[in-house]
Amino acid sequence: MYTLYYCPGTASMVIHLALLEIGAAHELKLVDVEKKQQKDPEYLRLNPNGVVPTLVIDGRPYLESAALLMLLSERHPEAGMIPAAGTVERDQWRQWIIFISGSLQSAFRAWFYPSELGFEEHSEATRAALQQRIAAIWDQLDLHLSKNGPYLLGETFSAVDLQLTMLMRWSRNMPRPATEWPALSKLAQLITARPSWQKMMEIEALDVWPKARN
Amino acid sequence: MYTLYYCPGTASMVIHLALLEIGAAHELKLVDVEKKQQKDPEYLRLNPNGVVPTLVIDGRPYLESAALLMLLSERHPEAGMIPAAGTVERDQWRQWIIFISGSLQSAFRAWFYPSELGFEEHSEATRAALQQRIAAIWDQLDLHLSKNGPYLLGETFSAVDLQLTMLMRWSRNMPRPATEWPALSKLAQLITARPSWQKMMEIEALDVWPKARN
Repeated sequence: MYTLYYCPGTASMVIHLALLEIGAAHELKLVDVEKKQQKDPEYLRLNPNGVVPTLVIDGRPYLESAALLMLLSERHPEAGMIPAAGTVERDQWRQWIIFISGSLQSAFRAWFYPSELGFEEHSEATRAALQQRIAAIWDQLDLHLSKNGPYLLGETFSAVDLQLTMLMRWSRNMPRPATEWPALSKLAQLITARPSWQKMMEIEALDVWPKARN
Repeated sequence: MYTLYYCPGTASMVIHLALLEIGAAHELKLVDVEKKQQKDPEYLRLNPNGVVPTLVIDGRPYLESAALLMLLSERHPEAGMIPAAGTVERDQWRQWIIFISGSLQSAFRAWFYPSELGFEEHSEATRAALQQRIAAIWDQLDLHLSKNGPYLLGETFSAVDLQLTMLMRWSRNMPRPATEWPALSKLAQLITARPSWQKMMEIEALDVWPKARN
């Protein structure tokens, strides 16, 4: 039995998606980030970093969305989110999760939390630098997907595609959202058509994304 | 046979240490970051991110230091860098690697590369904010080690301790280096006394660290 501490639309989304892909029994507990509930002393006892998600298993809290995605994928190989151990694909899968988390997710964190860099708001120069960094990563991922897609690991869906699609969604109000890159847009279409995505969107009560094109 | 593309003192250090812990045959290839060789077209074909390390195995390049540390630890369980699969310790081990890479290493990256945030040099406000972030992480790690140490996983050394010690070394010229925290300092003493560390320091030709106290 899993208990997921989550907030709609945040980094907990990929873990919510993974639980739905697995079909595992789980309980959801809302941590309202707008109300700063992730900094409540009670929550900080579970997660000293004061962020979502936290996943509680057998009474023990586990942290870090990228680590949780690996943990759930490894525990439930039958859900098809992870290549077999000992294969090149397994190593590439792990590498993508770390790259997306370390490069893309951390750039988004800088974008959304200027206070962590000592600012109330980012300067134009910082916004431009972060946009350029993020766009360079979309370029690289789009090139990879256009050659080797439609999924990050090729013909086969895996947990990394859930992680990447969550981050693509985060770019929806940026000057150049990820869906402007064709192979990324195609991946977003594939992932958002999955039952797990549709159920997650309904439970988290989020607006349809990507918007239909006219 | 492993080939490690490295530069002394950088993020490749933890992979160099892991190879020495394993005792695996390996070849080292210098990528001189001072000379921007990590941006050479030939190197970018191996590593499109233009960073060290890259680890080549059977002619195929693998990237991302945190992912490489997991890869080598999993391939060589006899080296004792990783807890057994299916244990709570294994999940905690993975979580530490992701936390240290995502939180601490990314804060250091922001500290050392102002240009990635659109600046020639950081403002005092940004330096203060980053110092505060890094100090909060040292606080958290020191508290954990003082309760549960001396290693991150308790009584037993693992690959995470190599990763953390590399990052502690990066703080040596900061206003408050990690070794000012007692349990972190104790861990640094343990890790730098290992034959792998001493051999790495000799090969990478780095100055002794931590300095002896008077």
